[in-house]
Amino acid sequence: MSPVKHHAILAIGGAEDKVHGKEILHTFFERSGGTAACIGIIPCASRDPVAISGRYQEIFAEMGAPETVVMDIRDRAQGEDPSWETIVEPCTGVFITGGDQVRLCGLLADTPLINVVRQRAQLGEITLGGTSAGAAVMGHHMIAGGGSGESPNRSLVDMAIGLGFVPEVIVDQHFHNRNRMARLMSAMAMQPNRLGLGIDEDTCALFESDGSFQVIGKGVIAVVDPGDMTHTNEPDITASDPLSIHGLRLHLLAHGDRFDINHRKVLTVAKS
Amino acid sequence: MSPVKHHAILAIGGAEDKVHGKEILHTFFERSGGTAACIGIIPCASRDPVAISGRYQEIFAEMGAPETVVMDIRDRAQGEDPSWETIVEPCTGVFITGGDQVRLCGLLADTPLINVVRQRAQLGEITLGGTSAGAAVMGHHMIAGGGSGESPNRSLVDMAIGLGFVPEVIVDQHFHNRNRMARLMSAMAMQPNRLGLGIDEDTCALFESDGSFQVIGKGVIAVVDPGDMTHTNEPDITASDPLSIHGLRLHLLAHGDRFDINHRKVLTVAKS
Repeated sequence: MSPVKHHAILAIGGAEDKVHGKEILHTFFERSGGTAACIGIIPCASRDPVAISGRYQEIFAEMGAPETVVMDIRDRAQGEDPSWETIVEPCTGVFITGGDQVRLCGLLADTPLINVVRQRAQLGEITLGGTSAGAAVMGHHMIAGGGSGESPNRSLVDMAIGLGFVPEVIVDQHFHNRNRMARLMSAMAMQPNRLGLGIDEDTCALFESDGSFQVIGKGVIAVVDPGDMTHTNEPDITASDPLSIHGLRLHLLAHGDRFDINHRKVLTVAKS
Repeated sequence: MSPVKHHAILAIGGAEDKVHGKEILHTFFERSGGTAACIGIIPCASRDPVAISGRYQEIFAEMGAPETVVMDIRDRAQGEDPSWETIVEPCTGVFITGGDQVRLCGLLADTPLINVVRQRAQLGEITLGGTSAGAAVMGHHMIAGGGSGESPNRSLVDMAIGLGFVPEVIVDQHFHNRNRMARLMSAMAMQPNRLGLGIDEDTCALFESDGSFQVIGKGVIAVVDPGDMTHTNEPDITASDPLSIHGLRLHLLAHGDRFDINHRKVLTVAKS
């Protein structure tokens, strides 16, 4: 008998393999119930929702998903329609595509649809996946945008409120690919009670219901933990002044590594 | 009576202000003896040593330096000439310009000139400054080159042997400006007994003889401390595999912050 695949939450750093092994998307598919899954696709971050949802429908159908449902919501009034609750009801997996996380939150924050998805994902009743913009919205606090190539400073990062699926983390994506360490550290100086996760492309944090996540994929996840921070000048400086932050803990986690977000420690080390 | 200015070692992250306040270069000048200083300039990292040394001669002369000496060494045989020891003898300050750190080490590593400069700088008998390539050579281990925009991995950084003025550190420069965190972390996975210093442009680590340094300038210095590292997969993977590193300590230090490199802790916090 194969082991039961529990539901999980997958935060994917964007540009996941859609052609070859499709390891991350296949993990999402299996955790959603595999050939018994009903997969809902939320393409609202994208300005081309038909094309992007079509691509994922094709991938999941090829894997053997018997049914996919697209929740193509294009304005706020449409998003508040309670009939989406009925449409999402049979879904065992919900996948949020890439695009613009500000657009995604603008359309869906506090809607009945997102509230039911959050509740069911947190209870382990469905599997939730989000890639790129769909990963950026995972935390309560969200990185809405920002820059690189500068000393860390408050104006290097734009903060907003996310969809809160995993409230305690602040997710950044395309992380080392787009040189985003300085903006994530800047975000952590402003929200030192959270845990920063910088997720590389084709790399995924797979959250289990016990508060741990495992790394899957080709890149690394940088964990920026301000839990033992002894000082920051953040409250006392202007937005463009360089940030001083003392006592951050930093882990680079690769495929197979596991981390406990409640106790903020590495659990197991991947076998090379 | 003004306080006595002790000799120091200055590692400058490149692109220091040469026009307005010139804070870092002025600090170098004062620590070298100010209007009583004899300043030696080593332009060997540059392929245009006449122009670059002329620029610094002008700056130090404007500050009131009575004498500057240029050590324009262009090949290895010339560098080994013991007469440079006589030429450097009266210098109270030695400044190493930017350019290419591999060229600089190729010309000067293990020469009588560099050996006497190192010895006198470490004894606090002279002030030593180096900017950009001149900062990169400070440690025993040196970052010779590397890339950005990738998950940390061994092939992201080229390591070589530096000039060893402050042997325990590995310096990277133009740090946040050129998004070099991933390459510095990759270097630290390979040399976990050292302390990584990522120095931004127009920013300086001013090392005192007690083993502490102070931050001067516009950007930050990132201190990457692997002292409590619990694991790295570095020995077990191929050069392009993503690096896993658990338990790094990370500090961002801004102007006025001080750090003890022997005890690896922040000493004082800058007043905002």
